[in-house]
Amino acid sequence: MRTVVVFSLLLILFSSNLFAQTSDADYCRYVNPFIGTERMGHTFPGASVPFGMVQLSPDTDTIGYWDAENNRYNKKVYEYCAGYQYEDNTIVGFSHTHFSGTGHSDLGDFLIMPNTGELKLTPGTEENPDSGFRSRFSHEQESAAPAYYSVELQDYNITAELTATERVGFHKYTFPEKENQRIILDLVHGIYSYEGKNVWTFVRVENDTLVTGYRQTHGWARTKTVCFAMAFNKPIKNYGHKKFSEEIYNGFYRKFNQEENFPEMAGHDLRAYFEFDEKESNEVQVKFALSSVSTEGAILNLQTETPNWDFDQVRKEGREKWNRELSKIHVETMTEDQKIVFYTAMYHSFLAPIEYMDVDGKYRGLDQNIHTADGFTNYTIFSLWDTYRALHPLFNLVQPERNSDMAQSMVAHFSQSVHPMLPVWSHYSNENWCMIGYHSVPVIADLIMKDLYKGDIDEALHACATTAKYAKYDGLGDYMELGYVPADRQGSAVSKTLEYAYDDWTIMQIAGKAGNNKLRQEFAFRAENYKNTFNPKSGYMHPRNANGDFREVFDPLDTHGQGFIEGNAWNYGLYVPHNVDALVEMKGGTKAFASMLDTLFTMHLDDAHIAQHEDITRDGIIGLYVHGNEPGHHIPYLYNAAGKPEKTQEKVRMILDVMYTNDTDGLCGNDDCGQMSAWYIFSAMGFYPVCPASNVYALGSPLVKTATVELPGGKYLHIKAENQAQDKVHVKKITFNGEKLEKPEITWEMIKDGGELVFYMKK
Amino acid sequence: MRTVVVFSLLLILFSSNLFAQTSDADYCRYVNPFIGTERMGHTFPGASVPFGMVQLSPDTDTIGYWDAENNRYNKKVYEYCAGYQYEDNTIVGFSHTHFSGTGHSDLGDFLIMPNTGELKLTPGTEENPDSGFRSRFSHEQESAAPAYYSVELQDYNITAELTATERVGFHKYTFPEKENQRIILDLVHGIYSYEGKNVWTFVRVENDTLVTGYRQTHGWARTKTVCFAMAFNKPIKNYGHKKFSEEIYNGFYRKFNQEENFPEMAGHDLRAYFEFDEKESNEVQVKFALSSVSTEGAILNLQTETPNWDFDQVRKEGREKWNRELSKIHVETMTEDQKIVFYTAMYHSFLAPIEYMDVDGKYRGLDQNIHTADGFTNYTIFSLWDTYRALHPLFNLVQPERNSDMAQSMVAHFSQSVHPMLPVWSHYSNENWCMIGYHSVPVIADLIMKDLYKGDIDEALHACATTAKYAKYDGLGDYMELGYVPADRQGSAVSKTLEYAYDDWTIMQIAGKAGNNKLRQEFAFRAENYKNTFNPKSGYMHPRNANGDFREVFDPLDTHGQGFIEGNAWNYGLYVPHNVDALVEMKGGTKAFASMLDTLFTMHLDDAHIAQHEDITRDGIIGLYVHGNEPGHHIPYLYNAAGKPEKTQEKVRMILDVMYTNDTDGLCGNDDCGQMSAWYIFSAMGFYPVCPASNVYALGSPLVKTATVELPGGKYLHIKAENQAQDKVHVKKITFNGEKLEKPEITWEMIKDGGELVFYMKK
Repeated sequence: MRTVVVFSLLLILFSSNLFAQTSDADYCRYVNPFIGTERMGHTFPGASVPFGMVQLSPDTDTIGYWDAENNRYNKKVYEYCAGYQYEDNTIVGFSHTHFSGTGHSDLGDFLIMPNTGELKLTPGTEENPDSGFRSRFSHEQESAAPAYYSVELQDYNITAELTATERVGFHKYTFPEKENQRIILDLVHGIYSYEGKNVWTFVRVENDTLVTGYRQTHGWARTKTVCFAMAFNKPIKNYGHKKFSEEIYNGFYRKFNQEENFPEMAGHDLRAYFEFDEKESNEVQVKFALSSVSTEGAILNLQTETPNWDFDQVRKEGREKWNRELSKIHVETMTEDQKIVFYTAMYHSFLAPIEYMDVDGKYRGLDQNIHTADGFTNYTIFSLWDTYRALHPLFNLVQPERNSDMAQSMVAHFSQSVHPMLPVWSHYSNENWCMIGYHSVPVIADLIMKDLYKGDIDEALHACATTAKYAKYDGLGDYMELGYVPADRQGSAVSKTLEYAYDDWTIMQIAGKAGNNKLRQEFAFRAENYKNTFNPKSGYMHPRNANGDFREVFDPLDTHGQGFIEGNAWNYGLYVPHNVDALVEMKGGTKAFASMLDTLFTMHLDDAHIAQHEDITRDGIIGLYVHGNEPGHHIPYLYNAAGKPEKTQEKVRMILDVMYTNDTDGLCGNDDCGQMSAWYIFSAMGFYPVCPASNVYALGSPLVKTATVELPGGKYLHIKAENQAQDKVHVKKITFNGEKLEKPEITWEMIKDGGELVFYMKK
Repeated sequence: MRTVVVFSLLLILFSSNLFAQTSDADYCRYVNPFIGTERMGHTFPGASVPFGMVQLSPDTDTIGYWDAENNRYNKKVYEYCAGYQYEDNTIVGFSHTHFSGTGHSDLGDFLIMPNTGELKLTPGTEENPDSGFRSRFSHEQESAAPAYYSVELQDYNITAELTATERVGFHKYTFPEKENQRIILDLVHGIYSYEGKNVWTFVRVENDTLVTGYRQTHGWARTKTVCFAMAFNKPIKNYGHKKFSEEIYNGFYRKFNQEENFPEMAGHDLRAYFEFDEKESNEVQVKFALSSVSTEGAILNLQTETPNWDFDQVRKEGREKWNRELSKIHVETMTEDQKIVFYTAMYHSFLAPIEYMDVDGKYRGLDQNIHTADGFTNYTIFSLWDTYRALHPLFNLVQPERNSDMAQSMVAHFSQSVHPMLPVWSHYSNENWCMIGYHSVPVIADLIMKDLYKGDIDEALHACATTAKYAKYDGLGDYMELGYVPADRQGSAVSKTLEYAYDDWTIMQIAGKAGNNKLRQEFAFRAENYKNTFNPKSGYMHPRNANGDFREVFDPLDTHGQGFIEGNAWNYGLYVPHNVDALVEMKGGTKAFASMLDTLFTMHLDDAHIAQHEDITRDGIIGLYVHGNEPGHHIPYLYNAAGKPEKTQEKVRMILDVMYTNDTDGLCGNDDCGQMSAWYIFSAMGFYPVCPASNVYALGSPLVKTATVELPGGKYLHIKAENQAQDKVHVKKITFNGEKLEKPEITWEMIKDGGELVFYMKK
């Protein structure tokens, strides 16, 4: 692990000036965007505003190949989900779209790279940076903060500074005196790039300061189009491009020298360059707007969000946007690092989903047609298998309007999809079908149960119930017929059964709220299906074949081919969030259950049993508990149901301490669009949504000294840990508004209008 | 040559019932869509309405490959510009977009093929039709008429019938009893197809009777997208698809069996099939709507234009639309075949340009953004090097509103293009840069000079003048500097100089009309540039180098590399339409000029001097006069300027007789989007626009006995040939409204309000 030097220095400078607890306090100073950029966190350090479409960030590499034989990427590439690895020494350029924390990837659209000297139109290699336009850099000359990133590009002596609005990336490049000035626009570049990924690219030099175009790719998003408008702060002197795949048809364009100063570029793989007069000034600024709709939409976004050439103003406004969002939870912590980890978790929680529409509400739908968001803001990037657990529940506390908009975006997706389904894992007008379950449903249900959903409830219920009945999807036909997903027909069958049952329970909740008794009963019945994959003989959730037999050869420790995904029967098998008491009974009652949890947290898992997957590091594992993946995120809180809340408290505090640090490798697994960070935020405040849509939160042990949460409607939830200390992890007593809580839980109904939750730590 | 049997039979049946000269007369019976479908006419026999976006027509093959070494197609493919060759024995299927008469090609989008028996998803070869889904057919069981085509698919005993509206192709397939019913949708198929032409295809099965999608290709139109909506008259029972190029990335779609009943298909090259219950009925009908905008737009077009399942009604309305347009000129001819040739020429003249917008006015512009046509109908397919000569001038007589809309579409193109140019050769939101000149200009000028242009004249003038100054284009920079296009820097330099000079003269005309004296003078000066490429020593328009020297090695008979395109110094060198008198002087005065023309029409041109190009057949050549290509189309009328109008009369009548016949190979060269046909229509009526934008028509010798032309504003021009006979080609006297014409010409101003033009043929 390495500590971020620059950032630590900043902290020392500012440490005498801790926040004033006013709404305009500068929370941004506690954000370290480098956390998670080393190894498997898969976060990016670049510039973005909260939930913005633009993530303008340095890419240190994206190399790799699609391994067709195994239908997956080669391992190296898994590291580059966010385009940046802290250990790298070169920067290829700055691209405008990045996932935060995913384990599969895409995006990296529109790489911009400033340079000087001779023209090079390939990026070159890390081993030999001089072979291309990439540049060496050093972390000593790099800094990152919310909405701002800067780095010295050593090979060119160029200072690169980046900021952003929701839809515009704003670049400021300071060139050395008297050197030629060139900006490369690389449309071949992309994250998870491979030959043939680019479907088409199209670029027009509209005039001497404006360039437009689009890039279509075929990747995780199968049919993806992103349009752009790029403005320069001074006239282009000279420009050109080269194509980097075979010219299939040239036609009568052969009349022209297309490679130089020809304003119309199109092809599969092209890289363009733009040169500027160094005598005018030593700065080149670029405003780069995105649109899913059209270049016309991108121009509109550009003009609306960045009407002026004022980089510092945009940077300042970006920081203000972040401060507004970060201020939603004000914490006091025991250490500086805890505060940094906390606010960085807040920061990472607010990077996705992203706003996905033009300033006029137009966006590209699943059908690739242009739709207008009517009465909501449209969002995309729904990593729902991850984020329904804690991220969206967190949004219900501090981003309720956005969360409702996200749910409405999911219902819009449903209405546009040719499959009668809400999103599973969707991004950029595509369903990518990654992971399992139909976890839009619990997100929508949680909103509805909390009266925060602003769309039509019956429409939402229809979408949820219809989704849950799409027989084509991932064993769902069999599940409806047999009551479980048969393991001889489907991979990850047990995981699917368990998650479908939970999702069905949340549909029951909506149906109850909507007064639809028929659907309530139907889904109440389905919600019990977890029982059908439980084998009383083995005592495990156990893969079961279509004929009703449980599989004979079965290793409950193995994470491969045993009916689970990113887990095994030991940990994933504990997934019955909507009826933990029943789970405890199935596992032999509270005592046996507590003992089983003890074993789970202490058993040594040998390498053979760990998934050959780089989503997690060994650091993310405690016994059989795997914090680096999501299916176990509720497990530490299950001790409560076993009558051992003190063990929940221990485990939670241990995880908070060990698995999250203020280091570049301070995340123990993929941040997964904020789910890992949201777990931290909840747990650090002492509570967690074990079962979204139940309105119940389990109570753990807070890490903070105090927290103030700005709830919907301007109410405040104050959380306090009396006698808080690093070594005091056990809670003696918990009160809410002065009344002692008899059970280690609290409900939405109790806290939604604010109040004071006090944890009395054992001395 | 072979006569079309079916058609002849029809004629016999109807011949006792010749037109009633009323507006509802059935002119369609005189259209033989098979004319030009053999060898080089490149017409298609399928169903279309006048200027409709849909040309639903059988493709007998499209085989071929792009010959990268020579940057051209292999010869075989040149034959398939319209997808159909009369000599072929198999039909691959019916696709929805076709050029009429072009010499380069593209389109062939969305091939539909009904079949029975086992599933085959490749077309197979002509040699072995059973190897794929194609079918044998016979001309005995084929018929074609305006807006209707039918054929028996012998391999399947399926009767295929096709009709169309502007934006919808309507298919009716009658299957044999008790045979399985299948419709193939082939998205790989295309005209001028080659590996990599497909950029992306996308198909959604929206419900059990509606399928939508789009196809993006990279061809003559560099970046082309066509969207569709396909409706069936009965539910799909079963469907599927296969991809025919390597799967680049499959991602999590691998969860599904995508090949069967999976409603979302996307990839580079895919073919889909849809199966129907034969017990329901033995018919499968398909409505297939196009849109350049979106699948949503295609659905709107489908619902608006074909709300019902009434094939016969649509067919009837299609025929009515054709009768309305064909009735614009009513002729009486000496023979039945002449009438057929005349109305087929009318038919071919009204197949392009095509309406290119959705019913709500939206269309895809050059910038690939969606625009709305405001105050005009947007058109595409502008084969302007061909069509400015006679087709657009013909439109000014009988399609003035459409022609004005076409010109406004050109100005819209100008406003959307990143090049400051009006269309050169444009189709489907693309400039394809084919051929030379900037011949949007004379089209616009001709409209403006006739007071028929409904757009803003100053805006049009700006577009024309700006186009003429785009230095990057085809030697135009040198032309502006030197006064000619230098042959040592540009191919076809002499042709370009001559055409630029003429185009410039038409800008002068507009500027005069608009009162812009500066531009008038500027372009009057440029209009004289033809003189700069005339070499008094050789007596020819002569390739000239940038240093001012005429090229020393020069063969005025050669059509290769001598500064001309599709011609040589002898024929193309006579291209000074705006100052024929000056040309005559340059060529030594009227006597020498007439003598030179005599030689031109009689000289034997050996094979070595004929372009190795299949645009024309030997039948299209009379001496050095090449009617199969356009640059000489005015030449027969030049005898008038040499004081030998009787020779104009002879040559015109000879060409009318010899070069146009009621046969499948009845066109002597590419019809070129109607230019060849428009030449026929004008010349058969006795006049021709030698110099569009001059408002003067040269008079020749009519072939018709009488003609009545419906002019703008409900005025009628009556043309009569007194003593007309097959062997009477010379004109004794010509009167207009009873007054004898002293010169063999007539002006727009004379005829625009109607009148009577009488040719007194020599007895």
